[in-house]
Amino acid sequence: MKKFINDPKNFVPEMLKGLALANPDSLRYDPEYNLIARADAPSDEKVTIIQGSGSGHEPAHVMVVGPGMLDASCPGDVFAAPPVEYVYETVKQYASKKGVLLIVNNYTGDKMAFEMASELAAAEGIEARTLFVDDDVSVEDSLYTIGRRGVAGNFFVIKAVGAAAERGASLEEIVRIGEAVNAVTRSMGVALTACTPPAKGSPLFELGADEIEMGVGIHGEPGRHREKITSADEITDQMLGAVVGDLPFSTGDRVALMVNGLGGTPISELYLLYGIAHEWLAERGITVARSYVGEYCTSLDMAGASFTLVRLDQEIEGLLEAPASIPIRTF
Amino acid sequence: MKKFINDPKNFVPEMLKGLALANPDSLRYDPEYNLIARADAPSDEKVTIIQGSGSGHEPAHVMVVGPGMLDASCPGDVFAAPPVEYVYETVKQYASKKGVLLIVNNYTGDKMAFEMASELAAAEGIEARTLFVDDDVSVEDSLYTIGRRGVAGNFFVIKAVGAAAERGASLEEIVRIGEAVNAVTRSMGVALTACTPPAKGSPLFELGADEIEMGVGIHGEPGRHREKITSADEITDQMLGAVVGDLPFSTGDRVALMVNGLGGTPISELYLLYGIAHEWLAERGITVARSYVGEYCTSLDMAGASFTLVRLDQEIEGLLEAPASIPIRTF
Repeated sequence: MKKFINDPKNFVPEMLKGLALANPDSLRYDPEYNLIARADAPSDEKVTIIQGSGSGHEPAHVMVVGPGMLDASCPGDVFAAPPVEYVYETVKQYASKKGVLLIVNNYTGDKMAFEMASELAAAEGIEARTLFVDDDVSVEDSLYTIGRRGVAGNFFVIKAVGAAAERGASLEEIVRIGEAVNAVTRSMGVALTACTPPAKGSPLFELGADEIEMGVGIHGEPGRHREKITSADEITDQMLGAVVGDLPFSTGDRVALMVNGLGGTPISELYLLYGIAHEWLAERGITVARSYVGEYCTSLDMAGASFTLVRLDQEIEGLLEAPASIPIRTF
Repeated sequence: MKKFINDPKNFVPEMLKGLALANPDSLRYDPEYNLIARADAPSDEKVTIIQGSGSGHEPAHVMVVGPGMLDASCPGDVFAAPPVEYVYETVKQYASKKGVLLIVNNYTGDKMAFEMASELAAAEGIEARTLFVDDDVSVEDSLYTIGRRGVAGNFFVIKAVGAAAERGASLEEIVRIGEAVNAVTRSMGVALTACTPPAKGSPLFELGADEIEMGVGIHGEPGRHREKITSADEITDQMLGAVVGDLPFSTGDRVALMVNGLGGTPISELYLLYGIAHEWLAERGITVARSYVGEYCTSLDMAGASFTLVRLDQEIEGLLEAPASIPIRTF
């Protein structure tokens, strides 16, 4: 294994410490609960938005804490749900009088941790609601999931409810918006290589030198099938075919298109995929109104990519356009 | 080779097409000359800022075209300098009455192309100046360079002169600023893996399963030495020791610190390195006033990272703080 790490046990806390040191004015870090929060949270003027999950998917979710996005994030260890008490402590510390929304990608461990934390919080009079994201069309049920997995589409749910929360929307309204975005969001990923978890020290699964895993999960869960590596055109055709056919998206739709890198794929290849996908959709009368190219939800160092489509209406488009800021600085 | 590509010959144009399709309002793309430019350039109110280089270093430089950064970029093929006529055409199309600054990373091929283009432009009455970036402390002279190589430090030169140009500074003033930033900027990189150029189809150099190349160049040029992979603490100590000792940076300095990913390294590892580096500098009385963590200047899919330090004074800090925007959207 070749990684920039010290003791694998400290991978997550050392990453979080670095994130906090890089953003002393905007983030607060509580090492006791792996907690990363907006320095100015909570505010009783807005619903608190929280998401946690296993680590290894950065920038999701610890690096999307900021105005218009998450108020707090409580990650677990690599690919492991956060302990219930971490989630509960995060909810308790950052609860607002307007309530708390807990966004959860659909994995059994995460679901259990967030639902229990939410019940514990309710017992203390904190109004907390959970919202599940399950945008991955590739398989029904999976290694760690009953139903569909939640993957990069969670970005759009966070962005939309984050914007609504900044505008002062009620918890009920925010749950409605989050569910509406999840309902029109579909994703699918492909792995060119396996990822290597720090504590394991070797690839999580075996993939032949010329093989790809179509429909891979973000923890290396099996997808639909394996095949020989083929052209970017053919990979795009197969993946977008699955994504578009699922909702289905159709002629006349306006969409947001995300090309998400899984961690080890350079941005040059992501833009190449974007160009192919944009034209593939245009040929079918689907207009890309908003584009997102880069890393949003990764799987450690996995080479690969996913496509996400969101069907836009006026409300969702307005929420995606709203200003937001996160600690990842490009300038 | 496992990459998202079609014909390797079309790697660069297909990437540029994707970039342009994702940014129809802000970018203009001219396929004839690999040219990516601000849709609203040129303006006679500001000096035109241009940088080109071989491709494969994205987001440098085609993805940092925008207000407060580059007005235009003319990339060559992967790891190949742009042809003189591409550079010349870019200068001619985007020349401003206030003049043109050509930023060039110090590689012999790029230097020749930009100097010749600048002379051709001068013959047509265009005032164009070239500015060389050579921030890499690892070696003197290299495979493609006489003197020191230019690497991720070019970001800070672009950012500073881009801000000065927006404020209406003269060409002479902008050259002075660019040289001042380059003079206080130092970098060093390390490779955990080799990169694979699309046209070659196999790794550019061989690196043992437990080996790293300390001081690697962004085209895989040899660095100072190879060694066994060691801890993130030890790698950081060795690299920052070299960078800090070179200027040298010293107690009381305020700096910008960049941890740059080389293409295949996930952002989690970059933040882990950032935390170590921040504390390493603090222990020596060097204050990180501005932090930059992510991919700025890559080497295709190479796993690895580089550190860049810039010694700040009031002028440089002000220019780095100035607003800017680029097509890479995170929201």
